[in-house]
Amino acid sequence: MPEYKAPLRDMQFVMHEVLDSEALYQSLPGYEDATADLMNAIVDEGAKFAENVLSPLNHSGDEEGCKWSDGEVKTPEGFAAAYQQYVENGWPALPADPNYGGQGMPAFLGSVVSEMIGTANWSWGMYPGLSHGAVNTLEAHGDEEQKQKYLTRLIEGTWTGTMCLTESHCGSDLGLLRTKAEPQADGSYAISGTKIFISAGEHDMAENIVHIVLARLPDAPEGTKGISLFIVPKFNVNADGSLGERNAVHCDSIEKKMGIKASATCVMSFDNAKGYLIGPPNKGLACMFTFMNTARIGTAIQGLAHGELSYQGALAYAKDRLSMRSLSGPKNENGPADPIIVHADVRRMLLTQKALAEGSRAFIYFLAQQGDIVHAADGDRAKKADDLLALLTPIAKAFITETGFESANHGVQVFGGHGFISEWGMEQIVRDARISMLYEGTTGIQALDLIGRKVLGSGGQLLLGFTSLIEEFCGANTDEAIAPLVETLGKYKDEWLELSMKIGEAAMKNPDEAGAAAVDYLMYSGYVTLAYFWARMAAVAQAKIAAAEGDTSFYEAKLMTAQFYFDRLLPRTAAHKQALLSGADNLMQLPEAMFAF
Amino acid sequence: MPEYKAPLRDMQFVMHEVLDSEALYQSLPGYEDATADLMNAIVDEGAKFAENVLSPLNHSGDEEGCKWSDGEVKTPEGFAAAYQQYVENGWPALPADPNYGGQGMPAFLGSVVSEMIGTANWSWGMYPGLSHGAVNTLEAHGDEEQKQKYLTRLIEGTWTGTMCLTESHCGSDLGLLRTKAEPQADGSYAISGTKIFISAGEHDMAENIVHIVLARLPDAPEGTKGISLFIVPKFNVNADGSLGERNAVHCDSIEKKMGIKASATCVMSFDNAKGYLIGPPNKGLACMFTFMNTARIGTAIQGLAHGELSYQGALAYAKDRLSMRSLSGPKNENGPADPIIVHADVRRMLLTQKALAEGSRAFIYFLAQQGDIVHAADGDRAKKADDLLALLTPIAKAFITETGFESANHGVQVFGGHGFISEWGMEQIVRDARISMLYEGTTGIQALDLIGRKVLGSGGQLLLGFTSLIEEFCGANTDEAIAPLVETLGKYKDEWLELSMKIGEAAMKNPDEAGAAAVDYLMYSGYVTLAYFWARMAAVAQAKIAAAEGDTSFYEAKLMTAQFYFDRLLPRTAAHKQALLSGADNLMQLPEAMFAF
Repeated sequence: MPEYKAPLRDMQFVMHEVLDSEALYQSLPGYEDATADLMNAIVDEGAKFAENVLSPLNHSGDEEGCKWSDGEVKTPEGFAAAYQQYVENGWPALPADPNYGGQGMPAFLGSVVSEMIGTANWSWGMYPGLSHGAVNTLEAHGDEEQKQKYLTRLIEGTWTGTMCLTESHCGSDLGLLRTKAEPQADGSYAISGTKIFISAGEHDMAENIVHIVLARLPDAPEGTKGISLFIVPKFNVNADGSLGERNAVHCDSIEKKMGIKASATCVMSFDNAKGYLIGPPNKGLACMFTFMNTARIGTAIQGLAHGELSYQGALAYAKDRLSMRSLSGPKNENGPADPIIVHADVRRMLLTQKALAEGSRAFIYFLAQQGDIVHAADGDRAKKADDLLALLTPIAKAFITETGFESANHGVQVFGGHGFISEWGMEQIVRDARISMLYEGTTGIQALDLIGRKVLGSGGQLLLGFTSLIEEFCGANTDEAIAPLVETLGKYKDEWLELSMKIGEAAMKNPDEAGAAAVDYLMYSGYVTLAYFWARMAAVAQAKIAAAEGDTSFYEAKLMTAQFYFDRLLPRTAAHKQALLSGADNLMQLPEAMFAF
Repeated sequence: MPEYKAPLRDMQFVMHEVLDSEALYQSLPGYEDATADLMNAIVDEGAKFAENVLSPLNHSGDEEGCKWSDGEVKTPEGFAAAYQQYVENGWPALPADPNYGGQGMPAFLGSVVSEMIGTANWSWGMYPGLSHGAVNTLEAHGDEEQKQKYLTRLIEGTWTGTMCLTESHCGSDLGLLRTKAEPQADGSYAISGTKIFISAGEHDMAENIVHIVLARLPDAPEGTKGISLFIVPKFNVNADGSLGERNAVHCDSIEKKMGIKASATCVMSFDNAKGYLIGPPNKGLACMFTFMNTARIGTAIQGLAHGELSYQGALAYAKDRLSMRSLSGPKNENGPADPIIVHADVRRMLLTQKALAEGSRAFIYFLAQQGDIVHAADGDRAKKADDLLALLTPIAKAFITETGFESANHGVQVFGGHGFISEWGMEQIVRDARISMLYEGTTGIQALDLIGRKVLGSGGQLLLGFTSLIEEFCGANTDEAIAPLVETLGKYKDEWLELSMKIGEAAMKNPDEAGAAAVDYLMYSGYVTLAYFWARMAAVAQAKIAAAEGDTSFYEAKLMTAQFYFDRLLPRTAAHKQALLSGADNLMQLPEAMFAF
């Protein structure tokens, strides 16, 4: 079973050498405490918690799963104790608002810690992970009383939160939702309806659970413009903050599912449960959108997490397992066979995992920093960061989860038949990873958001905001050693713009053209975006080698991995390009009745 | 949960209209009974058995799994009764030797029936499926006494068989195996060792189990040249054919695994078990190779099976599920939203599944027929078929299972979050499909076989044997309506030959170049091969439309699917081409110690 070791050297490389985090946070008001030393110290502590407390519970959690009985959910052995320790160590407060008990550290640092927690044990990480959604909602839209009553406890971690959006007949299309909210004489609302797929909807880890619920007021307009946001606590809360009586919200059942089995996925029924409006009436969806980017980056982390964990498992096995001889002659002459890492195709799989994980890490850390810039800066600086976030978040969410799933499968493949056997722990990673392309907006939904709302919706402006960064990078990096990468990146940047124009033109005549191109366009964009981050990493590595700073072999490995990425993964763009240029007809012409005979 | 309906119209299209099976079998000695009518009647009966008996046990079998207790294995509820019915209806005898109780039907027809059985319930199909391996071994290498004693009962189906190859330290590299066979005074052998991953190694469906075991004689040379084949029955068999005492072969445990949970994957220990040599000493691996192609085509069927089943589930859901509006305006104005089949990206996923399943079916049926030609014809005709089999089998095994797994995942994706939930049955298909890229030789092993033994090993002759068929097809099909497909196919045929030459040249200088190109080369080859079969199907469809024969809409759907394949899937070759041309350095240069820091 892969035992997680936080790849601290790789993480620090991105945090400090590529993204120069200390300088960034010293320039952002409110984050002056976030020095490199403090950030490293926090990351080191997070690594210990992830490696020593959470990683050992990952496989047992999958085997045991959650158990539902009479409305209560028992999480796997050790989960509640680990959560207790998480709370005692103050982790829930790390990136939260100091006015309500938070430590005010950058959300970026929260993402770095989330990466380690999620890689060690994604299922466990979902319990505190869902609280982030509730915390963000309350920070942004709660009134002072709500913040004192709920937010402080969520930040403390003694209560956890949920996001109750989906109903059985609607997931992507929230405009169809039916849960009702009837105003009551005391200013509260009676919430009635059934929500499904509610992660952490019920469990045995915390004293109370704060549900954030999407519902309709009696006079609400139809569709997405008639949705409001409500707080519905599991236990009502008295004026002094103590717990009152049990609210009429119950967990009817938990889902049996492919993976993340230690995460309770609940059917929640609200039967005139007491709720409280957050934010303005009928603006619930807009309120949710304010932190949609955060939630999506959180899911992108899952792709990185599963890719990294699978890589760690596969690499250890590939060094250990003996099978056949290298095509170019024995490499382990005294042994009965060579370790499989000598075989080119095993290396292809390992390097694919490595290049995707390290590239995705740089991409995600960069995005998380843009979130902090939006939060702390203002004017043009905040606007630029917000634009980058808007464009890149759907790419990160969909591309990193799709490629993370691919990586998880390479890890199984490296193990051969043993990869299919539960005790090795590799197949669990595939099962756990599969959900990441579905929740928080499927790959298809992200792709429509990218091409429709972001690229075409901004008349190309958001895309130009990012390609100008690429252009700037290419202009500034003229070292001959990395010239082939820089030149290739520049060409792809031009092609990306061209393809975007072509889709835009086609979509003007036929809106289905945007939908027909969407996923291939997103994947194309993902490969080019990762090429940008790999080129940046290569440039840093090359500069360190030239200056003879640090461990040269570390930087050489970065250069070789960058070359692998440009040679063997980036060319996948060619397939996506041809597919998206082929137009909508080949998808739309087949009448529904002729799909099967 | 997808309820399997055999796609009889599609199957007949390939059997008769594309591959003209009746004419083929009328031309092959021994197969004169195989008329179109008889074949259709058999397929119809097989469809009923698969749909009515096996399909209802697919999901329950996964949920229940197999249970081990004290060396015995209990298969899921209904499995043994279904097997009883299978035996009573004479299915095990279908393609077997009439001299030992078989019906002597083409193995091709056996593959068609296997497709239906496997699509309805892959786990169940593995029990009779493993018997095929034992039957083939005994037919080819058993002596008359062994055939009378064991083969007759396997063909009857009252006994089942296994193939005991893998040991915990060796799978792909069988040269390392350690199981011993000591000659005994009575001419038998005492077999000792432990085998793992033995499908159907123990179960409650049949009276006896005939294990075919790879082991080493005391004086055997090292490596693959010192392996012999033995029959080891679970119960010894008396001279009169009755069951004698229990042999010293036992099931120590069954594996907990990702999927195919209703198929017992056994650890088998042989403790001086009585065994009988089949074939000449030390030639066991060579004997196995005589039907390796059959076993690999059998696994290719799994890719088709899971792709087809996932397509059936996803198509039904896509017509039913309402979410959002078509980008080009509402298609279901009176409903709250449109069925998701109106969305271009959902269609992209469905058409990918459809094009892969239908193309793979044509590919597999064609290959199965080549096997019958090898068996029944002689001289140049048999040689040509054997050459085609040699080249195309590794492509079929790896490409169809890789793309079958992709298809299974598209099916989950079409369901959104529901796809991850067990009760819908879609995630099971992904879990079941995952093993197909691992057993019977991983994708990497198939790829080395293709580029090394087959393409370069024959000096390109095997490849030219197939490309000449493509050339012939292109020359003979000049109908303007399919000219774009034919022209494209011809270009790819040329490029395939070119790429093969380039890899050959590079591998002469550095053998690792073959390994570095192998999987991308195999996938490239797979896409071109499927393009050939899609072009053939399109040509037939176009001819039928031109002649106004049959249901035009059926043939139009074939043309549209062919166009989709050429527009959106075949371009994936561009990515594989660039990757394989990038050479071995980007895979081999990173020292083992620099994969992680």
